[in-house]
Amino acid sequence: MPDTPYLFVDVDRLERNVQSMASWAADHDVVLRPHAKTHKCAEIAQRQLEAGAVGLTVATIGEAETFAEAGVVDLFIAYPLWLSGSRAHRLRTLAGRVRVSVGIDSADGARRLAAGLTDTDVRVLVEVDSGMHRSGVSPDGVVEVATAARDAGLDVVGVFTFPGHGYGPGAARDDAAKQEAAALSAAAESLRNSGFDVTVVSGGSTPTVRLADAGVVTELRPGVYAFDDAQQLELGSATVDDIALTAVSTVVSRSGDRIVLDAGSKILGADRPAWATGYGRLLDHLDARIVSLSEHHAVVDFPAGSTVPCLGDEVRVIPNHVCSAVNLVDVLYAGATPGDDVEPWPVIGRGANA
Amino acid sequence: MPDTPYLFVDVDRLERNVQSMASWAADHDVVLRPHAKTHKCAEIAQRQLEAGAVGLTVATIGEAETFAEAGVVDLFIAYPLWLSGSRAHRLRTLAGRVRVSVGIDSADGARRLAAGLTDTDVRVLVEVDSGMHRSGVSPDGVVEVATAARDAGLDVVGVFTFPGHGYGPGAARDDAAKQEAAALSAAAESLRNSGFDVTVVSGGSTPTVRLADAGVVTELRPGVYAFDDAQQLELGSATVDDIALTAVSTVVSRSGDRIVLDAGSKILGADRPAWATGYGRLLDHLDARIVSLSEHHAVVDFPAGSTVPCLGDEVRVIPNHVCSAVNLVDVLYAGATPGDDVEPWPVIGRGANA
Repeated sequence: MPDTPYLFVDVDRLERNVQSMASWAADHDVVLRPHAKTHKCAEIAQRQLEAGAVGLTVATIGEAETFAEAGVVDLFIAYPLWLSGSRAHRLRTLAGRVRVSVGIDSADGARRLAAGLTDTDVRVLVEVDSGMHRSGVSPDGVVEVATAARDAGLDVVGVFTFPGHGYGPGAARDDAAKQEAAALSAAAESLRNSGFDVTVVSGGSTPTVRLADAGVVTELRPGVYAFDDAQQLELGSATVDDIALTAVSTVVSRSGDRIVLDAGSKILGADRPAWATGYGRLLDHLDARIVSLSEHHAVVDFPAGSTVPCLGDEVRVIPNHVCSAVNLVDVLYAGATPGDDVEPWPVIGRGANA
Repeated sequence: MPDTPYLFVDVDRLERNVQSMASWAADHDVVLRPHAKTHKCAEIAQRQLEAGAVGLTVATIGEAETFAEAGVVDLFIAYPLWLSGSRAHRLRTLAGRVRVSVGIDSADGARRLAAGLTDTDVRVLVEVDSGMHRSGVSPDGVVEVATAARDAGLDVVGVFTFPGHGYGPGAARDDAAKQEAAALSAAAESLRNSGFDVTVVSGGSTPTVRLADAGVVTELRPGVYAFDDAQQLELGSATVDDIALTAVSTVVSRSGDRIVLDAGSKILGADRPAWATGYGRLLDHLDARIVSLSEHHAVVDFPAGSTVPCLGDEVRVIPNHVCSAVNLVDVLYAGATPGDDVEPWPVIGRGANA
């Protein structure tokens, strides 16, 4: 049994989450390309592919290299790559081994990509901004980028977006899903009107995935759903029974209705959106709140009259953002319950930022 | 030259920061025991020790094991350890190799520590809460904990605190430094009045360290000062010329006065206190603000009329909290300027949470 804090994967819940999303996608005639940045783990990628995923999504060339090494043969780098440094060489090598798709969101980026790739076979998707205002072009800017890409010799196969503004309370999820559908639909249509053969229209994020318009999208890329986390719980896109990853921690200090756990931001991540009720939740104490988080301390307040865990007790923390937590460890411990019978699952893509 | 994003250490600035703090401590007749959780790096520990540090502070047994392996012979685990799992065995092994001090903040924790250590030689410091309200007991609770420790056979040598509530705007630093001095002074005096030989009175954090009362403390434990970061800059405890660590990143997307960098929360950390002006700062564009941060995207807004970096430009980001950033990478790249002549410095303590 590892010393606390460590990340525990409830394998039954993980498999249920993977199957449930796969079934939803199959029922809606949409292909699933899960984002592997969430788990960075071969054991989970394998389960997603066996459940019917068409391939994986990744965020960086480094993540793609990791999963290609692990045997995954179809990878989409959903990111507007700028091929500086050794990236052109690395992308050519990668595309010589597996089927690779990449994002573009500018004519300059497309030309640089084409120059770096020479004649390597890589598929290109134009990123559309559906309202998050991160990367991506507006739907009416898609043709310009796609045309520059085609003129530079690239194979433009479609469009993608990330409706990350669906991470919000109230109507945010519904609104983002509608904007996603509208933006992708407009972008795909304008490409078709300009003579492009649009075979991939890719969207999706865990909060919005089941709200996606299956009449518009051909592919969805949720990541977090494999584990879920406190953000999904508080957004209403997961229930507590869906939570498949927790940080097993120990009560190291206690004063009245306040305890301190040895799981801090160096295992949970420091993510805390304004709408969150704290820095994570406690799986078995949903009325408690993590009111402050240091690198190795979580300070947890309990309502007056609660049964407060004792010094030395083990407590399971649901991270706010599971992708950040997983990226902080070398190994996940998987099993039916925390304890001696857990199996180490290496986080093979940890830190693959470049 | 590594592909972006990567963490670059400006060695001249690092050495200046290390020397400056060492000189301050020497001038004030206080010993320095820098917190190594910030850098987790043997090359930096060595510089701190050569500049006169009496030893290092760490947060976990795992960090202590790492630095003992690297040759550091005097380590203080500034944390109220609860010896569950293999921790008792690990701590005994560690104390057989190097001089070890540990924190306690409860009578139960002290008894558990004593039972786990049997007759191993470990020094114990009682943690005092000086106003942060994390772990630690109030000054008037110190004698009870120390007495339980002594009765259990432990060697109580003093008290320590972390004035982390000094991380705040306005008068927070001054107020926290005064509370630190008052709490440590009261705690040390009550221990002396109860017959304890108090040889260590340990305080300090980077924002408050130069405000510490050298008539009260015998030792200070700042960590961040080696690199400084955007939090210290915005608190006024560092200037931009003190910033010794940046994330070298590439502009991957641009739209008007907004750019997107490839450095996200997976290399900068997601730390963002309420008083911070963004998710980090840009070393060469101090008027810009990182308005949102995803795992692999930093969205940066520039004031109208600014010279905005172009697609493909390299931009250096100052993380909000440098300890979090360092813990996300396997290697720091050190040199005079980012580029081909950087030297890899392994982050030997990365992920040593337990």
